[in-house]
Amino acid sequence: MGSTLRYLHHPASQPCRAAMQFMLENNIPFEEEVVDITTDINEKPEFREKYNPTGQVPILVDGDFTIWESAAIAYYLSEKFNCPDNWWGRDTQERGHIQQFMNWYAYTLRLGGGAFHWTIFAPMIYGYDKDFSAEIKRGRFLLYESLDIMENYWLKDREFVCSDVISYPDLAACQDLLSHDAGRIIPESVWDKHPKTHAWFRRMLDRPHAKTVGAWQYENVGKILDDGVKFEFKRKTAVLKGTELNSGHNHGISYAGQKDDYIQDSEA
Amino acid sequence: MGSTLRYLHHPASQPCRAAMQFMLENNIPFEEEVVDITTDINEKPEFREKYNPTGQVPILVDGDFTIWESAAIAYYLSEKFNCPDNWWGRDTQERGHIQQFMNWYAYTLRLGGGAFHWTIFAPMIYGYDKDFSAEIKRGRFLLYESLDIMENYWLKDREFVCSDVISYPDLAACQDLLSHDAGRIIPESVWDKHPKTHAWFRRMLDRPHAKTVGAWQYENVGKILDDGVKFEFKRKTAVLKGTELNSGHNHGISYAGQKDDYIQDSEA
Repeated sequence: MGSTLRYLHHPASQPCRAAMQFMLENNIPFEEEVVDITTDINEKPEFREKYNPTGQVPILVDGDFTIWESAAIAYYLSEKFNCPDNWWGRDTQERGHIQQFMNWYAYTLRLGGGAFHWTIFAPMIYGYDKDFSAEIKRGRFLLYESLDIMENYWLKDREFVCSDVISYPDLAACQDLLSHDAGRIIPESVWDKHPKTHAWFRRMLDRPHAKTVGAWQYENVGKILDDGVKFEFKRKTAVLKGTELNSGHNHGISYAGQKDDYIQDSEA
Repeated sequence: MGSTLRYLHHPASQPCRAAMQFMLENNIPFEEEVVDITTDINEKPEFREKYNPTGQVPILVDGDFTIWESAAIAYYLSEKFNCPDNWWGRDTQERGHIQQFMNWYAYTLRLGGGAFHWTIFAPMIYGYDKDFSAEIKRGRFLLYESLDIMENYWLKDREFVCSDVISYPDLAACQDLLSHDAGRIIPESVWDKHPKTHAWFRRMLDRPHAKTVGAWQYENVGKILDDGVKFEFKRKTAVLKGTELNSGHNHGISYAGQKDDYIQDSEA
């Protein structure tokens, strides 16, 4: 454990905040490096070549070992630092359910983040004159559906999403909802239909490190909503994975085929 | 380990095939129950209540313990049956990279399955007169981008995607590509740009159990493509998660808000 851990992240990113909260809750020492994703820094080939071919954050550099994907970072660190086993499961069944949650989350709640992204950030990236109503509707659909399953399955008879103690999935889910909360995406009428989820979310927000990692988001999204501040946001890569219509999370970035006719040709 | 494992699945599903191949490769005894996803059986409330609120397969029932999400099933079984540690990692770094792959895969290659779904199955579900070109284009974009990252990152200097030995991510990725192969989605011109990935895929297909679990797909998609057979496909739930425009994988299924005005109201 000789080298200092470098954690490349940005506080606007839900997964970045979740893995960072994991490190803080477990007193794992690290140096943070904010990657300014409002610029195109992580779209540049040298960034992708050096750190992560998808250009996404967070990224953990541990000496000559680099790992990305927030859940994988937390999984790796949990083992490396011998963290308490509540985070990734105390027995075979609980470990299985935690994996189940993280897969479910990837296809549902995480993609529902589009409700926030397309409402708050997309106009800065693509223009205030553009119509994002279809994307926002899709995001809300995924988000509300995810809340339903949080309410009626994950939190049906448990204090936390995978058991009676906190685990990594709670951090992941909480940080997704924190963005929606900062962006005032979820109206009271929807929370009222999900009382267990709402109570769990409030308990999660009360954890000191949830506040630490979430402060930037509340402050800056507050400026956008209350003061009409318009941040510059040059980056075209989807900040939120998989939520861009007709593209993956490298939207606008060249790929092997690069031109549209790569796809057109292939349809022949 | 008293009870017999029940494995609910369908051979048209890439994740179902991956977890099944894992069980076969590890000689894990199970009883299979095919859930006919061409009907609406797994859209029914009683199915969702009993097994999985998302209605998705695969599902594993182990006595009174139920687990879904293919990767979680394989993770759980690997520990329960003390499978060789190549499947989920032989050391801390490899285990971390395997988690990284499975997260990357969920947001990229898995969603690229839309290229297959919208080309082959969607017309049977929604009608042959419908235009799926936008969905197919999105699927191809994600698929080709995923192939680029397979080629230049995961398989850059390795025999298998996470190390020099096979791991669960190889099964997951192979079964996704098997559907594309059966559906003749990936033209030679695209494979030619991804020679390492192509060679890896051929090696993966040579494994006996890859053939066992993939036979149904090749046979039936072959009938569709060569003989013009039109299967009945009633199910509206997205067979492929997250690839439906403006919806999650419960498309067409009621949720707490249910009506469009649930979403409309929330925008106020």
